[in-house]
Amino acid sequence: MDVNVLGIIAGFLTSVSMIPQLVKVIKEKNVEDISLVMLLVLISGLSLWVWYGIKKDELPIILSNGFAVLVNVSLLICYFIYNKKK
Amino acid sequence: MDVNVLGIIAGFLTSVSMIPQLVKVIKEKNVEDISLVMLLVLISGLSLWVWYGIKKDELPIILSNGFAVLVNVSLLICYFIYNKKK
Repeated sequence: MDVNVLGIIAGFLTSVSMIPQLVKVIKEKNVEDISLVMLLVLISGLSLWVWYGIKKDELPIILSNGFAVLVNVSLLICYFIYNKKK
Repeated sequence: MDVNVLGIIAGFLTSVSMIPQLVKVIKEKNVEDISLVMLLVLISGLSLWVWYGIKKDELPIILSNGFAVLVNVSLLICYFIYNKKK
């Protein structure tokens, strides 16, 4: 299999698997199970992966980690919105 | 920054951020919040990332996704152990 196709499929699968958590948090407006520290660690790590992808010029890595940053920054925004309401 | 060092830091951060979920599941013996389908999608995606890393000969990708496979296979095992007990 072409390695870029492989990366795109891999990125698609790992990206899809993140969506339910965001949907659940938005639906239930409940961020109790989310650890702020771990979310910040994850966003930092994912951002470094995007940087790694840019330096290595590997589109699958840039796209999938860029998408993951978006999902987790959305979770972070939810965290502050729903955590305040308590 | 050297791109391999960057990848290793990125991989370390994204790996560390996964551990609390596994610890929580093991401590609380509760897998209610885990979706089996999404866990299988995630493990498939991570395994393809390991394959991608092997084909591209990129150690940071192999190590961090290999570790993520281990964490999520452990979650899968917990899922079957604690789901049965109900």
